[in-house]
Amino acid sequence: MNTQRTLIRMAFAAALIANLGTLGTQRAFAADQRSVDASDRATPAALQSLNAERGPRHTPERFVPVPSEVSPELAALIASAPRDGVWNADPPNAQAWREHVARLATLSLPGLAAMKQSLAVSITKGIIGGVPVFLCEPREIKPARVDKTLLHFHGGGFVLNPGEAGTLEAVLMAAYSGYRVVSVDYRMPPDHPYPAALDDALAVYRGLLLTRPAESIAVFGTSSGANLAISLLQRAQKDRLPMAAAIAPLSPWIDLTEVGDTYRTLEGVDNVLVSYRGYASRAATLYAGSLDLKDARVSPYYGSFSGLPPAILTSGTRDVLLSATVLTYWKFRNENIETSLQIAEGLSHAQYLFAPQAPETKLLFAEIGRFFDRHLKAGPKSGD
Amino acid sequence: MNTQRTLIRMAFAAALIANLGTLGTQRAFAADQRSVDASDRATPAALQSLNAERGPRHTPERFVPVPSEVSPELAALIASAPRDGVWNADPPNAQAWREHVARLATLSLPGLAAMKQSLAVSITKGIIGGVPVFLCEPREIKPARVDKTLLHFHGGGFVLNPGEAGTLEAVLMAAYSGYRVVSVDYRMPPDHPYPAALDDALAVYRGLLLTRPAESIAVFGTSSGANLAISLLQRAQKDRLPMAAAIAPLSPWIDLTEVGDTYRTLEGVDNVLVSYRGYASRAATLYAGSLDLKDARVSPYYGSFSGLPPAILTSGTRDVLLSATVLTYWKFRNENIETSLQIAEGLSHAQYLFAPQAPETKLLFAEIGRFFDRHLKAGPKSGD
Repeated sequence: MNTQRTLIRMAFAAALIANLGTLGTQRAFAADQRSVDASDRATPAALQSLNAERGPRHTPERFVPVPSEVSPELAALIASAPRDGVWNADPPNAQAWREHVARLATLSLPGLAAMKQSLAVSITKGIIGGVPVFLCEPREIKPARVDKTLLHFHGGGFVLNPGEAGTLEAVLMAAYSGYRVVSVDYRMPPDHPYPAALDDALAVYRGLLLTRPAESIAVFGTSSGANLAISLLQRAQKDRLPMAAAIAPLSPWIDLTEVGDTYRTLEGVDNVLVSYRGYASRAATLYAGSLDLKDARVSPYYGSFSGLPPAILTSGTRDVLLSATVLTYWKFRNENIETSLQIAEGLSHAQYLFAPQAPETKLLFAEIGRFFDRHLKAGPKSGD
Repeated sequence: MNTQRTLIRMAFAAALIANLGTLGTQRAFAADQRSVDASDRATPAALQSLNAERGPRHTPERFVPVPSEVSPELAALIASAPRDGVWNADPPNAQAWREHVARLATLSLPGLAAMKQSLAVSITKGIIGGVPVFLCEPREIKPARVDKTLLHFHGGGFVLNPGEAGTLEAVLMAAYSGYRVVSVDYRMPPDHPYPAALDDALAVYRGLLLTRPAESIAVFGTSSGANLAISLLQRAQKDRLPMAAAIAPLSPWIDLTEVGDTYRTLEGVDNVLVSYRGYASRAATLYAGSLDLKDARVSPYYGSFSGLPPAILTSGTRDVLLSATVLTYWKFRNENIETSLQIAEGLSHAQYLFAPQAPETKLLFAEIGRFFDRHLKAGPKSGD
């Protein structure tokens, strides 16, 4: 069977290469058209015959069009090819990782500068608990939000987005939620595997607690940043530190192995992370260091959610971590914690970061802000 | 290009037929094993090369395993083949539809009887507003829930589940939420297209309002039943009737055309509805009758959500109507209505109805019950 399949795949590849010239034009057209020729679609009879037996689902080769109910900004992103050399990056050694990380960070800075400007968010470097942070502030902070702080952990598989490159999400949150955000520039592999990042997170949290009550603090982050946000509060709970007022994990990477249905159902449909078998699987190993990937210290899915604060979770219908988001939702609900889930149509993993001005992005972050409005209480007046 | 693709598909079909004997055994094994041989999986390099250009996403032939984080009951269902002759039913005329509908209804009755028994839910026939209904009551109703009523509209594409066959979901809700449920046996195509079902829904709602306040009533239903629940409240709002206290649309079929990303991303992965191009597309036409499928009277997505009550929405990560659920969520949120979204891992369209004792099913309906607990207010004492 496998030989036959290999032959068929070779035939596919040959057909693709032979048609590459025309394909490019056709697909660009299809992207605008947002539909796919019906002849490109398996018949219902074929769908049935592929699945006539019990077992895994069997789907044919498919073309999945850009959905209709998304903004033009998001539609353009959904039509984009996955970034070759990014989602599938495989640096062969630590030095190659450092160069890869530095190159991507440098590439992101001009866009970030433009974004700060157009969203009128200022960024100031600082140190809290001995750890470098960026204070991201919207031009205007409403009185009800002045004495409250959002603590941010950037995403990027625990390895990407050092320095200011990690502040994009904090800038979006500051702009669209109207809160002051402290974004943590935590240490990362290959030089600093677990527990460096979590130690940094904890140091900043302890530092914030010196000058304000926990009830005035919320934590948030995307992907590995959401992992750190949850891990931090699990650690705070264990260490009997006061608990933050709320948490917003976006597309949380809560199990560093390939757990979650959408890793498989949406593989290759998600055009940001694309597949666990890209850089993500390698980043997981770099971060875990000597720990097993299933260890609750690096995979908080296996830790306790008891005592954690109200949570708002965010994902998209094309996010390979949609299942991880859903599984996290139920971890909170199983502890009877107030939990909210928002899912954006057509959105791939963390794709709002690439569509900073899309209405979907504004809405998702504004909704998180409204959730925080309901759960945070003002701390005493204090400078940062 | 199409010729080449056709040839490749023929090669696939030949390979499948040649291997059918061994495939059956292998898949049954894989279902228990819950994994798929790595050689059955496209490489990351293949995923990238299929998507090197802008346009629709292009995914290779795939085997999608049963996910790990689901109950054994749900895992067994996820491994099941889609029901041939059900999801893809295509009765050629009205009489054939009647026979198809009657046959499926009869097939469902023994399971329903067993379920009533084991869940200790009684079913009593009645008439409200001139429309036949089933009163479904749990053995014990807590005092806080006694003077509250859930109004239920069954699913089945507006054509399936006549009579008692339509009460399964009402039985589950009564058992797991602890509320009394009135399930409406509304008229259906082919004999009664729109507006018969909605007229019946409205007649029952008006009938209930004669003996109890709207604030003691919640409405719910799955798929076409969710369409009716939303349409009913849109109509109530238009007719200036008092508004129900809450609504629970499960996998709402809110646009009778193929709108929503997951119709494409999860086609053939969902093993209940499988594809819009099965019986659903034909049922849509039967129900809409002379109306356009996009008419807001049959596709409430295009109607107004202003004035609708708090909503809790339910779907699954394999539900082809996940996007429809998400789009409905935002319709409510855009009106600043309190809205909750719950998604079950691995669940296909309305699959809880086929796993009535699975922990996921209990949890989803219990959560809806808790949402109703927060939003319903007791009406005056009255018999039904």
